[in-house]
Amino acid sequence: MSISSSSDPLHLANDAALDVLSEHFAAYCDAHDSLSNLRSEFHVPLCKDITTQTPDTPNEECIYFCGNSLGLQPKRTESLLLEELAVWKQRGVQGHFRHPLGREWVAIDETVTTQMATVVGAVPAEVAVMGSLTANLHLLLASFYTPTKERYKIIMESKAFPSDHYAIESQITWNKLSPSSSLILIDPLPGNYHLTTPQILATIDEHADSTALIMLSGLQFYTGQAFDIQLITQHAHSKGILVGWDLAHAAGNLDLKLHDWDVDFAAWCNYKYINAGPGAIASIFIHERHSLSQTPRPRLSGWWGHDKASRFRMENVFKAIPGAAGYQLSNPSVLDVVALLGSLQIFSQTSMTALRAKSQLLTTYLHHLLLTHFPGPSPPFTIITPTSPSERGAQLSLLFKEGTMQRVFERLERAGCVVDERKPDVIRVAPAPLYNTFREVWSIVSKNVYYDVPVRILH
Amino acid sequence: MSISSSSDPLHLANDAALDVLSEHFAAYCDAHDSLSNLRSEFHVPLCKDITTQTPDTPNEECIYFCGNSLGLQPKRTESLLLEELAVWKQRGVQGHFRHPLGREWVAIDETVTTQMATVVGAVPAEVAVMGSLTANLHLLLASFYTPTKERYKIIMESKAFPSDHYAIESQITWNKLSPSSSLILIDPLPGNYHLTTPQILATIDEHADSTALIMLSGLQFYTGQAFDIQLITQHAHSKGILVGWDLAHAAGNLDLKLHDWDVDFAAWCNYKYINAGPGAIASIFIHERHSLSQTPRPRLSGWWGHDKASRFRMENVFKAIPGAAGYQLSNPSVLDVVALLGSLQIFSQTSMTALRAKSQLLTTYLHHLLLTHFPGPSPPFTIITPTSPSERGAQLSLLFKEGTMQRVFERLERAGCVVDERKPDVIRVAPAPLYNTFREVWSIVSKNVYYDVPVRILH
Ligand SMILES: Cc1ncc(COP(=O)(O)O)c(C=O)c1O
Ligand SMILES: Cc1ncc(COP(=O)(O)O)c(C=O)c1O
Repeated sequence: MSISSSSDPLHLANDAALDVLSEHFAAYCDAHDSLSNLRSEFHVPLCKDITTQTPDTPNEECIYFCGNSLGLQPKRTESLLLEELAVWKQRGVQGHFRHPLGREWVAIDETVTTQMATVVGAVPAEVAVMGSLTANLHLLLASFYTPTKERYKIIMESKAFPSDHYAIESQITWNKLSPSSSLILIDPLPGNYHLTTPQILATIDEHADSTALIMLSGLQFYTGQAFDIQLITQHAHSKGILVGWDLAHAAGNLDLKLHDWDVDFAAWCNYKYINAGPGAIASIFIHERHSLSQTPRPRLSGWWGHDKASRFRMENVFKAIPGAAGYQLSNPSVLDVVALLGSLQIFSQTSMTALRAKSQLLTTYLHHLLLTHFPGPSPPFTIITPTSPSERGAQLSLLFKEGTMQRVFERLERAGCVVDERKPDVIRVAPAPLYNTFREVWSIVSKNVYYDVPVRILH
Repeated sequence: MSISSSSDPLHLANDAALDVLSEHFAAYCDAHDSLSNLRSEFHVPLCKDITTQTPDTPNEECIYFCGNSLGLQPKRTESLLLEELAVWKQRGVQGHFRHPLGREWVAIDETVTTQMATVVGAVPAEVAVMGSLTANLHLLLASFYTPTKERYKIIMESKAFPSDHYAIESQITWNKLSPSSSLILIDPLPGNYHLTTPQILATIDEHADSTALIMLSGLQFYTGQAFDIQLITQHAHSKGILVGWDLAHAAGNLDLKLHDWDVDFAAWCNYKYINAGPGAIASIFIHERHSLSQTPRPRLSGWWGHDKASRFRMENVFKAIPGAAGYQLSNPSVLDVVALLGSLQIFSQTSMTALRAKSQLLTTYLHHLLLTHFPGPSPPFTIITPTSPSERGAQLSLLFKEGTMQRVFERLERAGCVVDERKPDVIRVAPAPLYNTFREVWSIVSKNVYYDVPVRILH
């Protein structure tokens, strides 16, 4: 039996005749986790290295629940990088065309495109590995946001990641329009942390005739809410509105089907759940409807997006490579591409469906333990992430009582747990199915760090 | 005596009472080259690794005259990369804020900005290390090309590097203008390979009232011509025209004074003379006049260009970092930045003035040997690079008789020489003053590969 077939830890514990709160159950889940072998692909930091305090257990592996910020380093990354350094050393410029490992730099991105496409549910021609997230958002907006007198608005969340906000606002200004009339921000309803799908659809309806584009995050960085990409995309399309998605927190986390969901375009970074390293090269998705058509969309163009057969002929008539690759501008960093390759080789050993199943179980288990461990009317935090597994990814966001978050964060660190703080009051906890364990989930909840006095102890 | 004080090999040989054509003279120059120690900072490929043919001298170091395409790998790059991999391994996300070597990733670009600025003659606030060359050209054009009804044209070379052509054309189109009326291309006069300065100035005059921007390369990739950046910039400014420079082939090659020359903006890649590796992270220059003013120019913006003190407060009002750093969009690749750091640490051991002096001597020497070795009415190639040392950089471009270039290129390779071919007929030869020697210049000319029968032999 594979535990991933159930996303409900209560059923699972029941079936196994184990107490869901017990360490035994965590061990049981790990023992039956068909993905557990993948953890050995990663370097896991030790407790002593992740804190300046005196750690409780210095030489043990830490509990790294921070893949939503920076994924752990795949062990194979180092040797891939050293291989490319060796080629540069030994062959210099010739590595572009003659490569002992078949990774000619002139087409280095082709070593990652297909697996990257698989991870987000795209066909290979729909994905290009290039640039960085915010830069790519600009390139995509320059191509897809073509305001007219009638349709000129962009709809986004009021609490989007700031870079997206800056990008969209500056694109509107670049088009000589004013954000005050052209930017529609969706705010959570009073007393709510999240946007609801009906609310989003209603906003689309309200501005249906004047909206050119809607851009949302697939998974909200702060609350951990997963949006209904398929439904929102479909609804916007029915009103003649294009839809783009920032998938920074969704790629490698949710089981995306960008092609089938008919998404127009998307962009994401690869340093979070994709584990390609700090500031890693990013990726874009453009639905083949847009990029394989006879009359390619206008775009800001560059030679790396030019037809490969004639690229070095140095003529000056731009002929786009069909597909997302035609949006490439520059020859990509070889070091960055192979760092991504290292991680994607691990993804290729499983599937997003399997990872997502494990992830749902891990996070539902975390959710259950947290609620059980801190019951009653006055727990030290509120979980502001949606409760339904389909409305969230790996991450849970814990909103602490004013003035208490920092202390808990530091105690967690001393206790060997790496999580992510969003000042002033939120801690984000994200078990990543590629390398985290059920034992770690059990363990982080049972740490005695959340109150000044211990609460109900897990056993 | 340092040989770099003279850029004329004939004088130098005369003073030393040596025959300028002799191998002795080459050895003499190397012995008196105060920069010769820098070669040991680089990995030089061996002859056997740079050809699929049977090389003449398999285990000797090759003659690598291809730094105009991809610079050699600094030896220190590998250990810098391994250091960052170790931090990622050991600390995960915490490397952003707590770094054992003081290179916190959150400010990793600051480890390179000052030295990068020194290399191009800028003050540190004028330079940002970010993105890739063509992508940066787009960002700069989006900020600096603001066409009006009166001023809307862009002037550029007709033979610019294609990526620049695509970038400018697509920016014009993005602005809903037509390249046919808004793009002014300067063509070499009939029978000429280069543009002349008077011709460029005359084109500016001709379109003075309707031109918004002129963008040229500092050093022409094909002919090796160096433009008079200072004079052209000054002249354009006198007509109210902004000036941008693509310095891909000029950075780390010419002794640039971007600040003093009052250049508006510039962009370059760092994989050529700057040796930061294939597809390395690029750099931009924005004169402080534009970026430190009270009302910063509009730009396509992102969170990494936002005021550092409030960047993580996640408010949605963009407040630019003063200077070029305010054009950054995304957190940069740490691997790419330290690869650049490795090379810049070598640049910091000398100065561009010293490098340029050696470079002028190296290339003038190469030029002299080539003309002497292949004299007469029918040499196998024409040197299409300007003859005056001030009008060129390290590179000489050799235009071969139709149908002969490829054969010479292959023979050079077998003889252990890495140069760069531009099909159909040009070979570019670029001795780099950081790692190339006078002996190598002597040697590449004296190889018996240019004709089917030997010509005058250097002795
Ligand atoms: C003069 C010039 N401009 C632009 C480019 C394009 O560079 P990238 O691929 O880094 O954008 C090059 C590449 O060699 C170049 O030589
Ligand atoms: C949702 C989201 N969008 C955009 C960004 C900006 O990323 P980058 O710095 O790679 O452009 C981030 C970074 O964490 C993010 O989480």
